[in-house]
Amino acid sequence: MTEPSAEEAAAHAAKKAKIKAARDRMMEEKTGEKGLVIVLTGPGKGKSSSAFGMILRCLAHGYPCAVVQFVKGARYSGERDLITARFGDLCAFHTMGEGFTWETQDLARDRAAAGAAWDKAKELIRDSRNRMVLLDEINIALRYEYLDLQEVVGFLAAEKPPMTHVVLTGRNARPELIAAADLVTEMTVVKHPFRAGIKAQPGVEF
Amino acid sequence: MTEPSAEEAAAHAAKKAKIKAARDRMMEEKTGEKGLVIVLTGPGKGKSSSAFGMILRCLAHGYPCAVVQFVKGARYSGERDLITARFGDLCAFHTMGEGFTWETQDLARDRAAAGAAWDKAKELIRDSRNRMVLLDEINIALRYEYLDLQEVVGFLAAEKPPMTHVVLTGRNARPELIAAADLVTEMTVVKHPFRAGIKAQPGVEF
Repeated sequence: MTEPSAEEAAAHAAKKAKIKAARDRMMEEKTGEKGLVIVLTGPGKGKSSSAFGMILRCLAHGYPCAVVQFVKGARYSGERDLITARFGDLCAFHTMGEGFTWETQDLARDRAAAGAAWDKAKELIRDSRNRMVLLDEINIALRYEYLDLQEVVGFLAAEKPPMTHVVLTGRNARPELIAAADLVTEMTVVKHPFRAGIKAQPGVEF
Repeated sequence: MTEPSAEEAAAHAAKKAKIKAARDRMMEEKTGEKGLVIVLTGPGKGKSSSAFGMILRCLAHGYPCAVVQFVKGARYSGERDLITARFGDLCAFHTMGEGFTWETQDLARDRAAAGAAWDKAKELIRDSRNRMVLLDEINIALRYEYLDLQEVVGFLAAEKPPMTHVVLTGRNARPELIAAADLVTEMTVVKHPFRAGIKAQPGVEF
């Protein structure tokens, strides 16, 4: 690329200075800190990987954190092995699910597994030493009513310690959960390689 | 919750068995493996954290990987410290950007920094030992034309080793890049806590 001319460089600097001033003003107003209820939903890829990216950030800061996997028990997960082996002192990892619901075909068992996972989740959230608790794929348990939605939303409102972040992932987040959350991202599919016959690959999907 | 009745349990099992059979058939057809061009874009939170979640998965599998940060040099990043300190043998980490463009106000410097980051990115992608190369926030450099879009798209098509995943993050991904990608997720904002006066917090944003 060619070098910018003096005029181009000056116009660029003036424009960016204006953006910076506006942004600095905006950021000055943002002084609050609080533990967030974060919902990652939608059909696109990146919900659990984004949640694990935040767990990685917590580990980087030396914050105690915890993971409860609601429906992934049956699948191998690289991140579970790594976190358990290398960061087990900082991050409790509980895989309570029995695989996706179409694998088990047993409603009573699915409900019991989801209930046990939720009991563990409550225990971990109540422990205010945990700065982040990830409830991975809980939205699936809520969608199929293996867990009571009012109980989950009510617990987060009443008992989550003020500085604890709780991250809830899975597609089809219930509207009442979205209403109760502080941060909600919906992952939208623009392109998915499964459609082109590519299977789930280590390092990308698990 | 009450126990399911025998009829309810049987209906549930039959329905899930049907879903499982359909899913098993579908997954059998997905046998391909290839290195993907993955684009994570959109205004919502979770682009870089999702990318770092995939880096975490690569580290879990013991795959060599690499990160080039295009515009985040000026900001502290917990994940950079952790990866450098604990996984430096597996994951090269290059922070080449000079902060967001509105911080520098210097067009020639922004272009030079983006060009140096891209040169490093090409070197890392050409090294086929790397299973994943993350080009964090490269979309910003492409959007402001600090990098030549045709050069980037052409390089990925011509020189990316077949089994290497390249992940490109940042909002406003250019349409030509989306056209060239295998997997594209757009992160949509449903709710953002900055709007409620909450600042960027460690463990969540960095």
